[in-house]
Amino acid sequence: MANKKIPLPTVNRLSLYLKCFYDLAASDVEYVSSDQVATSIGLNPAQVRKDLAYFGKFGRRGFGYHVGQLKEHISKILGTHRQWKLAVVGTGNLGRALLMYPGFQIRGFKVVAGFDVDPAKVGWELDGVRIYNFDELEKIIKKEKIDIVIITTPRDSLDAVMTKLRGTDIKGVLNFAGKHLLKDSNIIVRNVDVALELEQLTFFLTNKQGKE
Amino acid sequence: MANKKIPLPTVNRLSLYLKCFYDLAASDVEYVSSDQVATSIGLNPAQVRKDLAYFGKFGRRGFGYHVGQLKEHISKILGTHRQWKLAVVGTGNLGRALLMYPGFQIRGFKVVAGFDVDPAKVGWELDGVRIYNFDELEKIIKKEKIDIVIITTPRDSLDAVMTKLRGTDIKGVLNFAGKHLLKDSNIIVRNVDVALELEQLTFFLTNKQGKE
Repeated sequence: MANKKIPLPTVNRLSLYLKCFYDLAASDVEYVSSDQVATSIGLNPAQVRKDLAYFGKFGRRGFGYHVGQLKEHISKILGTHRQWKLAVVGTGNLGRALLMYPGFQIRGFKVVAGFDVDPAKVGWELDGVRIYNFDELEKIIKKEKIDIVIITTPRDSLDAVMTKLRGTDIKGVLNFAGKHLLKDSNIIVRNVDVALELEQLTFFLTNKQGKE
Repeated sequence: MANKKIPLPTVNRLSLYLKCFYDLAASDVEYVSSDQVATSIGLNPAQVRKDLAYFGKFGRRGFGYHVGQLKEHISKILGTHRQWKLAVVGTGNLGRALLMYPGFQIRGFKVVAGFDVDPAKVGWELDGVRIYNFDELEKIIKKEKIDIVIITTPRDSLDAVMTKLRGTDIKGVLNFAGKHLLKDSNIIVRNVDVALELEQLTFFLTNKQGKE
């Protein structure tokens, strides 16, 4: 596999390709053309060919791309050919939604624990996932070999959560706490902010640049 | 205001700047340097200066940027100086979390209605927001002058929701339904997919390119 540095926008599109190939595989489609992929994602075919060429030769003249092969290959590039264990810290509405999110398992993610400071929630099980006391965070991360933590606490609790996580082997954080987290020494961070997503939408509505 | 086409990554960073200026204004900070902004967001100062220069001269040698002025200006560019009315279609855990999301109001967004097909949920009020029957979608959108719809239904319901929305004056859709939506003739679409966000994280964990 080519290991040159892949540009960020390409990495982002890889997830879209993977999703597309999952859907095609579920419908027993064996080969697909770059035109078909492009149409279903809303990109131009030249872009699709350029992105997929990054990872070697997959197209076959007259046949198109082999869905199963490419699905497996992109999974490997994105790291989702293996299973990643997740924990959700903060089990309000958003936390509970993510704890029980049906779309994770097929994409290689398994939520194995929830955490909360509210004693009334500790001990609950949702879809077989137990909610632990926040005090047990380090212990359970170690015991369950958790790789990634999704944080959905109020923004004022974010620092306390990160302080605890720095003492663990956690590798990545997906942050929904509404406060922008910088990258941390050993923890890779990705911030998700719904208000920011809405602002990107209103920018286009206001300026009529009109595209996704 | 310069109306040349702003590159997408810059638009994305504008939301981060705006969030930063909101926090500074809340702490009564009047002027800020590009270095301070850069540090708090995790960018390099040259990038910050380049982005902000896009919109005219805001820096003042020796003083830095005027927080209040820049906050207002970026709000205008992003279109959030006015209020946008939102509806949430699908009131499961995620839908309810967004219906009651405390971070919307300050950024210019107001959720005014929820919709569900489940008769057991219709008629509820959450934080003063009423849940209507999905059948009333067009009527309530018109009556409440709703601008943007957040969709959190199961993916199989997405087409039915979009078919109804095409008959309304809705301008934008934020789609959490787990199925990629293409741009629509008159509706601007933005897709949010938590599994995709996790894949972007595992890409970096797997390939050790190691940055946000």
